[in-house]
Amino acid sequence: MAEPVRLAEKLSAFSEHWSPKVVADFNGHDVMVVKVQGEFVWHAHPDTDDFFLVLKGRLRIELRDGEVTLGPGELYVVPKGVEHRPVAEEEVHLLLIEPAGTPNTGDAATAAVKTRL
Amino acid sequence: MAEPVRLAEKLSAFSEHWSPKVVADFNGHDVMVVKVQGEFVWHAHPDTDDFFLVLKGRLRIELRDGEVTLGPGELYVVPKGVEHRPVAEEEVHLLLIEPAGTPNTGDAATAAVKTRL
Repeated sequence: MAEPVRLAEKLSAFSEHWSPKVVADFNGHDVMVVKVQGEFVWHAHPDTDDFFLVLKGRLRIELRDGEVTLGPGELYVVPKGVEHRPVAEEEVHLLLIEPAGTPNTGDAATAAVKTRL
Repeated sequence: MAEPVRLAEKLSAFSEHWSPKVVADFNGHDVMVVKVQGEFVWHAHPDTDDFFLVLKGRLRIELRDGEVTLGPGELYVVPKGVEHRPVAEEEVHLLLIEPAGTPNTGDAATAAVKTRL
């Protein structure tokens, strides 16, 4: 029997921050959940847009020319090549979608290893 | 100033069923919200996976060899080429992602026109 991907259940299975977990595959992309808190690094993805959907909490995405703040049920796509820095004052739960293998920092040398849940 | 895509706000702007509204662009894909109720047609997409995330209500996706039922915060990806039929006993709100231009029935002749919100 096919089973849905229950995002809350996936999120309850880990506690570490900035460590995306792959929960589904879609057209060569990883569909991931992640918990974040604090400031991430400024980065850009030269070859892919960056999809953020907030499931819990409030995420501020700083851009070089402004910022956008997302609450639950709100999404934002950072266009490819645009520098951004996610900042979470308190813990935020996110759904992310990126081409499989995309480094989360934009640089494989500093990127988190994505694991599958 | 950049603005988030507020899914509830987008969904409050229309009432018709089975008529996807594009709310964002992501890597050549349309990110869409849609309200559905009743039975859709059996169909498959030969060239793309089909991404469903339930925002409200309960969606049953019938498959030729079973079915999967999704509640809020649950997602399912129907692999490319797999026949499926979405069924909603009551109104369901969904987030969908498909390559731009994908006909929602798998057939351009019978597909809904996607508009942008």
